[in-house]
Amino acid sequence: MKNKIIVLASRPKGTPASENFRFEDADIPALEEGQILLKSLYVSVDPYMRGRMSDAKSYVTPYEVGKPIAGGIVAEVVDSCNSQWEKGTVVIGNLPWQLYIAHNGEGLNKIDPEIAPLSYHLGILGMPGLTAYFGLLHIGDPKPGETVVVSGAAGAVGSVVGQIAKLKGCRVVGVAGSDEKVSYLKEELGFDEAINYKDTANIKEAMAQACPDGVDVYFDNVGGEISDSVYWSLNKFARIAVCGQISYYNATSLPTGMRVEPILLKKSALMKGFIVSDYAEEFGTAAKDLAAWVKEGKLQYQETIEEGFENIPQAFLGLFTGENTGKQLVKVADREV
Amino acid sequence: MKNKIIVLASRPKGTPASENFRFEDADIPALEEGQILLKSLYVSVDPYMRGRMSDAKSYVTPYEVGKPIAGGIVAEVVDSCNSQWEKGTVVIGNLPWQLYIAHNGEGLNKIDPEIAPLSYHLGILGMPGLTAYFGLLHIGDPKPGETVVVSGAAGAVGSVVGQIAKLKGCRVVGVAGSDEKVSYLKEELGFDEAINYKDTANIKEAMAQACPDGVDVYFDNVGGEISDSVYWSLNKFARIAVCGQISYYNATSLPTGMRVEPILLKKSALMKGFIVSDYAEEFGTAAKDLAAWVKEGKLQYQETIEEGFENIPQAFLGLFTGENTGKQLVKVADREV
Repeated sequence: MKNKIIVLASRPKGTPASENFRFEDADIPALEEGQILLKSLYVSVDPYMRGRMSDAKSYVTPYEVGKPIAGGIVAEVVDSCNSQWEKGTVVIGNLPWQLYIAHNGEGLNKIDPEIAPLSYHLGILGMPGLTAYFGLLHIGDPKPGETVVVSGAAGAVGSVVGQIAKLKGCRVVGVAGSDEKVSYLKEELGFDEAINYKDTANIKEAMAQACPDGVDVYFDNVGGEISDSVYWSLNKFARIAVCGQISYYNATSLPTGMRVEPILLKKSALMKGFIVSDYAEEFGTAAKDLAAWVKEGKLQYQETIEEGFENIPQAFLGLFTGENTGKQLVKVADREV
Repeated sequence: MKNKIIVLASRPKGTPASENFRFEDADIPALEEGQILLKSLYVSVDPYMRGRMSDAKSYVTPYEVGKPIAGGIVAEVVDSCNSQWEKGTVVIGNLPWQLYIAHNGEGLNKIDPEIAPLSYHLGILGMPGLTAYFGLLHIGDPKPGETVVVSGAAGAVGSVVGQIAKLKGCRVVGVAGSDEKVSYLKEELGFDEAINYKDTANIKEAMAQACPDGVDVYFDNVGGEISDSVYWSLNKFARIAVCGQISYYNATSLPTGMRVEPILLKKSALMKGFIVSDYAEEFGTAAKDLAAWVKEGKLQYQETIEEGFENIPQAFLGLFTGENTGKQLVKVADREV
């Protein structure tokens, strides 16, 4: 049996393509004393990874050309030369895109397989759920009766943002890229309104109509024209959480457009960027809240799970064409133990 | 003796000009019971007034064409049919550009002429001083050793921002529009560095050099390219107080340019617009702090005082060509009583 590895073949210019990835075979690594052998079960693909594929200075270090891509992975300990990690333990960590990984255990977290499906730890109870939680509650600070707009609303983060906002008694308006997603938001997740931006001639007008009392909180996953349409409807003292700017991730030059500063001034509005790790000290409390809401049926969670290690690049590329609803994952293997 | 009035003759397109103002004569108003007669002593001219000269929706209501311009004025009660207001009382309020004004006293605040020169109440102890205080301390929240950049640094607000930042133990860098202003900032006000943006070929590079440890707090009075140059040097968790955007006030179309959102995201930075009235409940505390700092010689304050009612429009127009250093005022009359 051979190991499987996906490395960064070249840095994408603009939208990434299959040619930027290369599959490599290797032997399954032999363990040294203190090491464990992990087998990947679920691999997370996320928009932020596009940033790491460039060599521009960013908040995360770039991937190296010729080295494996890395990201959130749920894996099982299938062999162990380390008494702290038993065979059969399930872990989550930032790991390379490899079927088998030799590891010393540092930075890994154990998962309790009883509290939720294993894949949930890459989504609602993991990075996307925590991102939604902190951006909405710490920056957006929504009050009952206020209007909350979320872009990328059908995505892994956006779908949680909208539901937490509903929990908090807000009017919630989502922006997404298909009629199917719009139906999902309104009928499944209880959004008050949802706009299909690809099918809307005048997004600014559509936003104003969907938000007759203006916008108090905007949770931004996308940037660009969708954000501009929200800016026009901001209320005095509005709060904007800048979580993602996917409309620019593939840009090869500096994004330009409408200046938001004069609007922030007029409206005494607040805008704050963040990354989930800013709130690392509070992950425990947040995960507890999220797990409770899921258990009580107050938070619905949807995944799109691709099957097979060889389909990881395709699942990643699909993020930029809007193919996924909810969290996009790839299932690589079943548990062995 | 006649009254003198300045009305808005027409709405400016782009930069305001003399033709947008018209002088009118009128009789000195006769008082009704409950009214007082005010004589203007000092008239404040401020960049925000440009916004009120347009009819675009803003945070302040537009001036009406054919009606007097209005703004901050220090005036003396020279006649009274209201027992609450004695002749000789000095007041401050939002008042029309008239030599004599009949008023019922509502919204006026009495001034103690002993604690500071009368004109100071239109500056360091008034709107500009309070604006500097709240924007820097409440939004910027500067910590000792941090780097604070202020644009429009030699203006009424900027010069106070920089001095308070020095008081708080920060490294302070100012941006202004002449060598004279740069000298004033560094030699008189104790700024660590100052940049003459009109004489700097590469402002982005100059900013990076002036802020070797990056920028933690940016107090923005101007917007545009100067702001862009600061954005490139922002540190993680930077705070930006958007106080003014004078580079856009004369724009006839929506300002476009570099998008700040991706930078806020990368740096987990905060940007907040404000107007001093957002903090009205805390004016008392702030004025006490400011007065104490002035008395202790920790806050220097500079005014440019034009003389004569007929020079009010010219003094206002000079704001947009960068002629003033410190707070621009017009002295209209001496106290009578």
